[in-house]
Formats: sequence, C-alpha cells, structure tokens
Amino acid sequence: MSRTMKAAVFLGPNRIVLDEKPIPEPGPLDALIRITTTTICGTDVHILKGEYPVAQGLTIGHEPVGVIEKLGSAVQGYTVGQRVIAGAITPSGYSAACLCGVCAQDGPGTKYGFKPLGGWRFGNTIDGAQAEYLLVPDAMTNLAPIPDGLSDEQVLMCPDIMSTGFSGAESGAVRIGDTVAVFAQGPIGLCATAGARLMGASKIITVESVPARMEISRRMGADHVVDFTRGDVVDQILKLTDGRGVDVAIEALGRQQTFEAGLRVLRPGGTLSSLGVYSSDLTIPLDAFCAGLGDHKIITTLCPGGKERMRRLMDMIASGRLDARPLVTHRFKLAEIEAAYDLFANQRDGVLKVAITP
Amino acid sequence: MSRTMKAAVFLGPNRIVLDEKPIPEPGPLDALIRITTTTICGTDVHILKGEYPVAQGLTIGHEPVGVIEKLGSAVQGYTVGQRVIAGAITPSGYSAACLCGVCAQDGPGTKYGFKPLGGWRFGNTIDGAQAEYLLVPDAMTNLAPIPDGLSDEQVLMCPDIMSTGFSGAESGAVRIGDTVAVFAQGPIGLCATAGARLMGASKIITVESVPARMEISRRMGADHVVDFTRGDVVDQILKLTDGRGVDVAIEALGRQQTFEAGLRVLRPGGTLSSLGVYSSDLTIPLDAFCAGLGDHKIITTLCPGGKERMRRLMDMIASGRLDARPLVTHRFKLAEIEAAYDLFANQRDGVLKVAITP
Amino acid sequence: MSRTMKAAVFLGPNRIVLDEKPIPEPGPLDALIRITTTTICGTDVHILKGEYPVAQGLTIGHEPVGVIEKLGSAVQGYTVGQRVIAGAITPSGYSAACLCGVCAQDGPGTKYGFKPLGGWRFGNTIDGAQAEYLLVPDAMTNLAPIPDGLSDEQVLMCPDIMSTGFSGAESGAVRIGDTVAVFAQGPIGLCATAGARLMGASKIITVESVPARMEISRRMGADHVVDFTRGDVVDQILKLTDGRGVDVAIEALGRQQTFEAGLRVLRPGGTLSSLGVYSSDLTIPLDAFCAGLGDHKIITTLCPGGKERMRRLMDMIASGRLDARPLVTHRFKLAEIEAAYDLFANQRDGVLKVAITP
Amino acid sequence: MSRTMKAAVFLGPNRIVLDEKPIPEPGPLDALIRITTTTICGTDVHILKGEYPVAQGLTIGHEPVGVIEKLGSAVQGYTVGQRVIAGAITPSGYSAACLCGVCAQDGPGTKYGFKPLGGWRFGNTIDGAQAEYLLVPDAMTNLAPIPDGLSDEQVLMCPDIMSTGFSGAESGAVRIGDTVAVFAQGPIGLCATAGARLMGASKIITVESVPARMEISRRMGADHVVDFTRGDVVDQILKLTDGRGVDVAIEALGRQQTFEAGLRVLRPGGTLSSLGVYSSDLTIPLDAFCAGLGDHKIITTLCPGGKERMRRLMDMIASGRLDARPLVTHRFKLAEIEAAYDLFANQRDGVLKVAITP
Repeated sequence: MSRTMKAAVFLGPNRIVLDEKPIPEPGPLDALIRITTTTICGTDVHILKGEYPVAQGLTIGHEPVGVIEKLGSAVQGYTVGQRVIAGAITPSGYSAACLCGVCAQDGPGTKYGFKPLGGWRFGNTIDGAQAEYLLVPDAMTNLAPIPDGLSDEQVLMCPDIMSTGFSGAESGAVRIGDTVAVFAQGPIGLCATAGARLMGASKIITVESVPARMEISRRMGADHVVDFTRGDVVDQILKLTDGRGVDVAIEALGRQQTFEAGLRVLRPGGTLSSLGVYSSDLTIPLDAFCAGLGDHKIITTLCPGGKERMRRLMDMIASGRLDARPLVTHRFKLAEIEAAYDLFANQRDGVLKVAITP
Repeated sequence: MSRTMKAAVFLGPNRIVLDEKPIPEPGPLDALIRITTTTICGTDVHILKGEYPVAQGLTIGHEPVGVIEKLGSAVQGYTVGQRVIAGAITPSGYSAACLCGVCAQDGPGTKYGFKPLGGWRFGNTIDGAQAEYLLVPDAMTNLAPIPDGLSDEQVLMCPDIMSTGFSGAESGAVRIGDTVAVFAQGPIGLCATAGARLMGASKIITVESVPARMEISRRMGADHVVDFTRGDVVDQILKLTDGRGVDVAIEALGRQQTFEAGLRVLRPGGTLSSLGVYSSDLTIPLDAFCAGLGDHKIITTLCPGGKERMRRLMDMIASGRLDARPLVTHRFKLAEIEAAYDLFANQRDGVLKVAITP
Repeated sequence: MSRTMKAAVFLGPNRIVLDEKPIPEPGPLDALIRITTTTICGTDVHILKGEYPVAQGLTIGHEPVGVIEKLGSAVQGYTVGQRVIAGAITPSGYSAACLCGVCAQDGPGTKYGFKPLGGWRFGNTIDGAQAEYLLVPDAMTNLAPIPDGLSDEQVLMCPDIMSTGFSGAESGAVRIGDTVAVFAQGPIGLCATAGARLMGASKIITVESVPARMEISRRMGADHVVDFTRGDVVDQILKLTDGRGVDVAIEALGRQQTFEAGLRVLRPGGTLSSLGVYSSDLTIPLDAFCAGLGDHKIITTLCPGGKERMRRLMDMIASGRLDARPLVTHRFKLAEIEAAYDLFANQRDGVLKVAITP
Repeated sequence: MSRTMKAAVFLGPNRIVLDEKPIPEPGPLDALIRITTTTICGTDVHILKGEYPVAQGLTIGHEPVGVIEKLGSAVQGYTVGQRVIAGAITPSGYSAACLCGVCAQDGPGTKYGFKPLGGWRFGNTIDGAQAEYLLVPDAMTNLAPIPDGLSDEQVLMCPDIMSTGFSGAESGAVRIGDTVAVFAQGPIGLCATAGARLMGASKIITVESVPARMEISRRMGADHVVDFTRGDVVDQILKLTDGRGVDVAIEALGRQQTFEAGLRVLRPGGTLSSLGVYSSDLTIPLDAFCAGLGDHKIITTLCPGGKERMRRLMDMIASGRLDARPLVTHRFKLAEIEAAYDLFANQRDGVLKVAITP
C-alpha cells in the first residue's frame, strides 16, 4: 500500500482540487477504509462556494462506501476486507447527546456532551470521503457492513440522502392515512417523498418544476406533483386537498419561500418537518402561525447517523422497498472530481447525484 | 328566575360595559349554568383594546365556575344544581380535530372538521362567562363537576390558566432531570413553572422583573428567577446552566424577544414550547436555529379543554399538588367589572388575576 | 318505507336466524342507515357458538356499509341519501375514555367514563348491522361518507378488519426498517401484514398454513410465509432473522401458542402487539420474558373507531394503497345469512370474508 | 498502591465471602475507580441464594460510588481523582441496542448488537462493586462526575434504585393528573412512588404492610398506603379510586400476585409498568385482561444506565427534588460485608438499604 492518496481538498472559495495527501493511520477507536464509491452533496457545493466555512486543506465529502483497510487497536467486531458504509453523521456513541437520542448534535469533547451539528465530522471538522482512503472515527458506532448482493451504487444514498430524506417523514411522524406535502424534489426531497410513502401517507403532494424531477417524484411515491411555476403553490396544494390542508409538510430546500408555504398548507395541529439548510433568518408569518395558537409543530432534523441507522436503510434497499439507483445520474472517476463538481454545482444535464469512484 | 341577566358586553374598542341580556335557553346538547365566579384573561384585554376582533354585543369571558341551572334535552349524566366548571376551550367531541387529538382546533361545522382556534368559543364566537348565566355547548363533553370541598377560587384557574400553563410543560415533554426556562411569569407563565416542576424538571429558571411575580415564581417552583432588567437574559440563563443551555424553553409572553431568547438558550435538540399569543410576524435567527440543523422543535399549544382535562386539573388541586389561590389577587362584583378591567388592563396594584362574582 | 325489516337475530347458542323486527326510530343524536352491504366477523361466530354472551333477540353484526335514511333531530353535517360507513366501534366522542384517546373503552353512561370494550355497541349491546336498517348512535362522531367512486365492497373491510389489522402495526409502532412477524393470516392478520408493510417494515414474516392464505399473505406484503405445520414456528422465524429476532410481533389469532411464540421471537426490547380475542388465561413463560427484565412491551388494541379513522382508511383504499377486495371471497343475500354463517363458521371453501347484501 | 484488594466474592450458594484479589488493570476504554461507598441489592441476595447463577469467584455488586484511580489509554474527558458514579447497567454506547435506545439490552459483542440483560455487567458478567477497586468498562459512556457538595450516601441510590424506580413511572408514562398504584415499597418501589410523584400523579396509592415502609412511602409521595394484610388489595385500591381504577400500576416485587393485582386495578386502556424480577411463569387472567381487548399495555423495564442518566438523577438530588438518604438505614465496613448480607438477606431490623464503605 502506497503512503499517499488522492483527495478532493478545499483550498478556498471555488477551489476544490484533487491533491495528494498522506494516508492516515487509525487511532485505537478508528478504522481506515478504502473508498470504492462516494458522491457530492449540496452541502459540499456550499463549501465550494465559500458559504459554509471549513478549514483550508480539508478533504471534502461525507458519503462513503468502501472496504475496511485497517482497524484501530481497540476496535472489535469487524474484519479487514469487509465492505462497509458509514453515515454522513458519525456520532461517538458516548456523548450526552447520543445518550439523549440526538446523536447528530454529538459533543464528546465538550463539557456537556452537546455540540451543534457536532456529529457531522466528515468533510466538516475532519477529512472526508472524496478520497482514496477515509478514517472513520468511533468505528464501532459507525461502520455498517453492506449486505451481500448489494452494489456500491445501491447503498450510496444511505449515508446522507436517504437518511435525511426519510427523517423528514419520521420527524413529521407521518401516520397511515396522512396527507403530506414535500417542498422541492432534489435528492433529499425525493427520499422524503419515498419516506412519506413508506410510512403510510394516503396522499403525497410534491412541489417541483424540473420535468425530470417531477417524473422521478412520481416514481418515488408522489400522487400529485405541483409545478410552482404554474401558479401559487399554497393555492394548488389547498385545492388538491379540497381546502383541508396537509397533516405534515416537509421542507427540503432551505428557503423562506418553501418554509412559509409549508406553514400555510398545514391543517391546524399539523407539523412542519424541516430538512433544508437555510442561509438567512426565517420569518414566521403571524397569520400562517395562527398567532401561536394553531397547535403547530416545527421540527428540524439533521441527518441521523450511526451503524444501526445505516443497517436499517440498507435493509430497505435489500428488501426492495426502495430502489435509490435512479438518483445516480452521472458517474465520474475521482480523478475527474473537479468536473463532477462543475456539473453538480451548476445542476447541468439533469444531474441528481453523481457517483465518484477512486 | 328572572328573564334577563347582567353581562359584560363588548361594544367596541375600549368599551366593555355591563349590560342587560336575555338569559339564553339551552338547545338539546347545551347546559345553562349560573356563574358563581369568573375572571378576566389577558386575551380579554386584547379584545377590549380592539386588537382581537369579536362581534359587537358579544359577552366576554371564558373562565366559568358555576352551578347547573338547566340541561338540554339530550344531555345525560348531570343534574341541576351540580357545581361545575368548563374549560376556556369547549370542543365538540365529535369533530375530526377532536378525534385526531387536537380538540382546540375543533371545527364541527366545517367540511373537514378542523378550524383554527375553533374550540375557543366562549367570549369569542359565542357569549362568554362574564355574566350571570352562561350557555355551555356540547355539555357532555365539557361540564366537569367540582370535587367536594373545593371552593370556587380554588378551581378558578383551571379553565384556562392552569390548563394552558401546564400544557407548556406537557408540549415541551419535560422529563425527570430536565432543565427548563420559562419566559415571563404572568399567570400562565407561573402555571408553566408549576407544570415543569410537577413533571420532574431538576432546574427551573424563570424570567421576570416584577418583584411580586419573582417571589411567587419561586413558590410555584422556580429555582432561579432571572431579572431581565439586570442584564441579557440569554447570558444569564446560559450562565446558570454553566453554558449547557436548557432542554425545554417555555415562551409565555408572546413577543419576538422572548421567542428568540427561548431559541437561544436551547441546547441542541431542545424544544421551544410556545404559549404566547403573538401580535406580529416572528423572526427565527439563522444562528439560533443552527441553519435548520440543530434538531430543534418549536411547538405551539392552545389551551387544552374538555371535561377530562378539567377533572385532572381539579384533582391536582384537590390533592394539594398545586395551590393556585395565590394567583387571585383582587376580587370584584360583576357589577364592578368595568373597574376590574381597568385595574387588570393596566396591571395596577400588583394584580395577577381577579375573581369576579355575580 | 315499510315499518319492519329483516335482521339476523341471536336466539341462543347455534341459533342466529333471520327475523322480522321493527325499523328503529332515531333519537336526537342517532342516524338510521339503510344497509347496502355488511359482513360476518369471527366475533359473530363466537356469539353464534354461545362463547360470547349477548342478549337474546339482539341483531348481530358490526360492519355496516349503507345509505343515510333518517337523521336525529340534533344531527348536523350530513344529508339523507349519503353513502356512509361507521366503524365496528362507535365511540360517543364525549366520554372520558374518548377524551383520553382510548375511544374503544368508551363509557359515556358510567361514573368515570370508561367501560371495558364499551365502544363496541353494534351487535353487542345494541342491535347490529346484519339487517336492512341500522341505528348508528352518536352519528356525528361515527358516520363517515364514502368517497366518490368507491364501491361497497371496496370499503367493507374498513369498519373492523382494516382498522383492527392496521392497529396491530400502529400499536407496535412499526418503524422504517423494522422486522415484523405476524401470527395467523386470517382477515385481520392479513390487514396487520398490510399495515406493517404500509408503515415501512423491511422484512415481514407471517405464519399460516392454509395455501390460499399463504398466497394472499404475500400479496398483502409478507416477505416470508412460515408454515407452522412444517416445523417449529419460533425456530423458523429466528432462522429467517438470522438469530436476531423481530422488532415487533403481531398476534392475530388469540391463542396461548401464538401469544407465546410472539414473545419468543422478539429481540430484547421488542414489542408484542396483540390483536387476538383470547378465550382462556394466558401464560407468560419466564424465559421468554427474561424474568421481566427484557424491556419488552405487550400492547393490546381493540379496533379503533370513529369517523376520522374511517375516513383515513377509506382514503387509503381510494389512493390505491391497499386493495382489500381480495378478502371478500363469497357473496350472499341477507335472506341467505344462515347459510353464510354456516360457511363462515366452518371455514369452508377457502372463505376469508363474505359480503352480505340486503 | 497495593497490588491486591479486598472483594466480596461469590463462591457458591450461600457463600459470598470477603476475599483477596488482584487490583485490575484498565484496558484502553476502561477506568479503574476506587470504591468509596457501595451497597447490596436484592438481586445480590438472589445470587447469594444460588437463584441467579453467576460464575464462581465473581465479585458481586453493581452500585458503585468512588474516585477515579486510573484511566484507560483511550479514555478522554476525565481526570484521576474525580468523584464519580456509574450505573448498575453499563452500556457500551455503540451496540445496536444502544443505538436503538434500549441500552440495557446491550450486546456489543453479539452479531446483532442485542443481548438480553446485556448491559448488566457489574457483578453479573464482570467483577462488581463490592470491593476496594472496580473496573468500569466503556468509561466514557458510563462515568458520571458527582456534583460538588453531594455526599456518597446522597448519590448511592442513583446507580440502581432510583434509576429503576423512576423508570417504573417513566415507562408507565405517568401524566399530570394520573392515578397511580405502586405494588410493594421496598427501595425500588419507594423510588417508583417518588417517580410517580415527580411526574405529576394526582393520586398515588402504594401497597405495603411493614409499618416503617408504610411511613417512608408517605414521605416519598404516597397519598394512600394500602396494607395488604388488611383485606384484598384490589378491592382496597378500587375503593380508593371510587371504582375507577388507576391509570398506571407499577409492579415492584416480582410476584404473580402483584402482577395480577396490577392488571386488575387498571382502568381500561391503562398501563402496567413492571419492574419486578420474576422467578416463575406469569399468568394473565382472561377477565383482568378483557380477553385481550382492553387496550392494556404491559411494559417491563430494566434499570436505565449510562452517564447521562446518572447525571440527571444526581441533578434531582442536588436540586432537592428527592432526598434518598432515608433509604440508607444501616452502615457497614467492607470488612463486615458478610454481616451486612446476613442482615439484608433476612430483612432484619427494618433494613432498607445498607451503605458499605471500604
């Protein structure tokens, strides 16, 4: 094994480049995995554009599929050569946040064990997955073996897209017979649609305007796809629900407009489940909020991580409940990652997700 | 029995006056109760000021304690002469909202059975309790007999103040060992404090500046009372939690400032339980909201009603778990209600709640 | 309209006969519906056999599909001629049980508002649905209009079979990615299978031995159907889960054997959701129960009723999430109901459910 | 520091003796703590009597209070000399069970990550706390610093008695205004009583016959203490609830009689929260179970562990919500532990719990 590896490194705004880095050495609780497939996330584009600050020189990416190359001295229960994934969020397992059930806000090194977004380490606070090798921290909490018979691309959406998307429906506590609206049908919104369908919604209305995304939205479970360029979204959704409104609205874009529309289509007592990454303050309109008296819930969720979550998601793939492969529209070699960023950041050619293989 | 009664009637902004009205006749599902004690709520002051529109000529008030005078033809299980209360919110019991567990958004006459704030009828959409007699709709869903030995003043806070205040802690899902902050210690905030204590919070921090309210806040369960005139509230609360933040913040004022401070003192994954009636749009600051990635919950609650809720609250009084009498600071005859409004609306003389007796 | 009607009446053990009865007159809160389709339930067979006592002369049946014939004087929001269903369980809406969320234990006439099984009135404490006409109590809580375009047979399973079956998965709190076992694939077990599938289970294992039921079990969502005549059920299920056990076991038969097997296949911390009607004391084996230290849950559920539940179930049918028609295997006229009982009670000819039309 | 230590070792039925053992050396994830106070649990008496099998030579005890003596190489966030406790249950933090929220069924070394009772390691599968030193596994998940100002005896009940007792109320989901019955007022039952009180029960009925325990039961929160020697317990409780029954029954003894009485006093839809360690099969009487149709829940809970749970419990002590010191009725040196076992196992001299100090 060589001593260095290729990695996609952030050098500054609009500069993510392929660079050479030393292959890291696992500490006692870590595992080193050889990446076989990874991908680019919308968050990575925020990093690329300088909108979300990370350290110069950091390797980007948080969606790893790979093979165990080396295990830390204290890691038990795994073997070198196993095919594994790890979630985008890699909780420690032992922080107060984890023990309280909010693993994504993991703060093992902090006084009280909570840290906002602390579970998001790959490509944020430690080197990420767009590389030939990746160090997975707290390996026993995070490494999930890939079931036999599943390809890399079949499980590539599990670390982030499926986990986040499904959590939109889960945090909304979708019940059998609910009506659900999902705002935006990018990869995460599409998986939120699939999640709402998997949890028993009787009517799913999605909001999108790109024809290819509208089409895949239906395949993922939408009963109606509302085109926001063809009239007011709130009006259209209320009309489709005959004026009743929805039980659960899922925001999957991260904009004031969709957040607000989500509130406006809720029936009294409904839940707005928010997945989007916002980039400015939000306004809650007084009327849409019934002056605070509408028994509304607004719930935000950061991608759930940990090996058990990954196991469950892969089981859903293995049992045919969801085929996430249609989300992978383009394929690149790691060596071409700069081109991949260019395509993905500019949303060219109908791209949904790209597969990157070192 | 006379054919007319005295009632506090809304005639227009700043004009709630005592007037003469016919005593109503119960329909098949109604009950007529003779009011023995009632009170004025902050919401009534909004009505008085013209900030919350109600029909001209409406009798105001939604906190009745009384005696059954007459039962509708289809009402069973009660007897004339029973001492009873009804909640401020009087759900029908049969709307979709009720059957979904959000009774306060009751819409029995609507197509889908939901109506924002629909369960609030007294002094809002039908004549209210500041009168000699009150018609209680859907009596079998709403009339709760007063346990023997409890006085009117002991149960006077149940219909609204205790039910709303406790719901702040309940909707926040306070658990044994939680740290809770309660913003504002008016009557509802004080009951939210009591509710947090009753549900097992280990540390309760309240925010208030009026010395008498600070004092009663401690009696209701506060471990620390933060005076917002003596420094930044967020700083003070974070200091009292040693930087950790609170598990649950309860907003009991209805202002941007307290709503925002509630978000800012939450630990990641915490819940903001909002009780306040807001009068303008709200802003969610991006940083306090972790850009939507903090696993935060914002939950609003309108006063839970119905006879079972009232029974539970009165049982808490009967068993000595809470003595709400200290909240009643002033007493008036119904004939003096204009003076009572004047005192209460202007928050003079340390008033918390007034008892009004016809 | 004639003054009398045909009705299937219980006269004593093994004697349910078609008889003539007066058509009832609705009280203020009732509705009279003309039955267009109904069915026979396993519970009716218990009544037939004298195993479950009901009053002599009672009309049997609790699964009505019909048309509103006449409304009580206080009933609003419906019109004569509407096609409706009502649940097998007809809660009042105003009892303490209803206001506590356990509508099926409704006790409106009791001191505390709870009565075991009190919500089950049709064919138990009041005349039931196997007749030309049916009086529906508390009509505003219970009548659910049938969506346009749905036939009687499409919604015939909603009042009991779907509501009960789905509740097995709901009370088990099936989550995305769970493994679920369902014991027995009669009509309710089949709907429990469908419910588990609709809520996102990744692996569903059902237990049955009748080939036709095994086949329909797969159509309803089973991944594996275990034949209990071909080896120990617990062994087979543990093998199919690779030794892990299931997250949720659903009992849909009402026998010690299946109850016990349900416990034995649970992973630690799992839930046994019990739907069966038992006919003798149950034994919890010490080992299967980990001496009380396995973090197990045993949850029983009586068919959820009320119009909102019915609406949700019919919406699931309308949106194509479930086609329950395959459960209806035989059709009879009401005049032939004695033959229908004979077929159904003896489980002849592969019968699952019969449709009875007056 | 000496190389050997004193420890209470199980040598066979009725033989727990003080012996000399090597002081263990912490592995990378462990911590060595010097025990300053510990105690004997009812479970230890089962071990003593040979009713619960453990390995010969094992050190007994699972309720440690101590000082960190040495930290494993990979343990961060603690310092030698800190006063700490660890729960009776020491979950790994990284097993599937932990990541599913059932830490007590922790199975880090197993294929699927679940193991019945797997989180109970001290004095069960590894050496326990009745010794001068104790090796705490997965120290970062389990070590909880003792707040300044709290004595050993103040926190001695946290590792097991309080955690288990409170969980009885928590698993029963006691709500404000509930009526709760607690069967048996040994140390765990007493803490269940305290837990029900802390969660807002309006009426708490406990069952006990020992006068001293009846007295302390009242101090812990009981409104009524029923003496089972003075008449049928079920009758007495139903009378105290005026025939209504209780919302939650907590079983804290582990016998058929109390389990069954718990079911019999439940209102329809109520929850039996079971804490007892049973020693034989249980019978569920058909009538008490409403043939499976009473919407009953039976929930078992094994003592919740982990540092966050311990922190919360100690915070409750620190804030004065509960004073658990009255539970400690006798004190012994570790050298006298055989006498302590003799007193405790035979329940002499009004013993509740003993404090053992090395």
